Amino acid sequence: MLITHEKNVGNLSGRPMGVNKIDDDGTMWFFTRASSSKVDEIEESRKVAIAITNESSNNYLMIHGTATLVDDKSKMKELWSSVMKAWFPLGLADPDMTLIKVTPSEVEYWDSSSSKMIVLFNILKAIVTGKEYAEGEHGKINL
Amino acid sequence: MLITHEKNVGNLSGRPMGVNKIDDDGTMWFFTRASSSKVDEIEESRKVAIAITNESSNNYLMIHGTATLVDDKSKMKELWSSVMKAWFPLGLADPDMTLIKVTPSEVEYWDSSSSKMIVLFNILKAIVTGKEYAEGEHGKINL
Repeated sequence: MLITHEKNVGNLSGRPMGVNKIDDDGTMWFFTRASSSKVDEIEESRKVAIAITNESSNNYLMIHGTATLVDDKSKMKELWSSVMKAWFPLGLADPDMTLIKVTPSEVEYWDSSSSKMIVLFNILKAIVTGKEYAEGEHGKINL
Repeated sequence: MLITHEKNVGNLSGRPMGVNKIDDDGTMWFFTRASSSKVDEIEESRKVAIAITNESSNNYLMIHGTATLVDDKSKMKELWSSVMKAWFPLGLADPDMTLIKVTPSEVEYWDSSSSKMIVLFNILKAIVTGKEYAEGEHGKINL
């Protein structure tokens, strides 16, 4: 989920997005329609967040970063793959196509990659022993 | 993921949360530590969002709402279950316990509850036919 600030009203706005490429330094690239509301929202406020959740394996990531709109056809060509035709049938010639580049500044993670049984066991153990449940690893990485 | 506005800096802040109860009108209840940063953040800005993603079944929900801190012991007693002891070993007597009540105003959903094979088939169909991929149902509900 890419989360942006809705214009004026102080609301948050989010939508599921597929990341197109992740650079070695963590920079993330997304293709989007230039006419979409998220593009307007990024123009107003470049601070965005990306929430990645994997409930089945109990992993949660919250990425904080700065979004930049990159209207660069040569970069689009570099990132383009034929699968993108499903979203942009006109291909690279589509005038309503742009890139969102997200430069992450902080990543927060909650990692309890255990099976549901182990999580349940740890919760039950906490209840029986009267000790607070240890939810697995949690930390912040500043980039 | 419960997403709040970080104090002062205009950043977004998020963390995985388990909802304790959902009322018939959609009001959501969460137990939390009164000393946690999310409580400070809600005191500053009551507009929150809840992102629920289920990648394996291709369902995504973005709930927008208003958070209220409810420091009401009788409500806590009503919502309490012994499983909560894993997070609050002291039980209802814990002085560092409070409730977050989220009243939703808008729910946005993306529902492509299809198997990965069907999603892949639809993407391939879009590529071959040159028609934009229909990502399943998407809509907004104002409450």
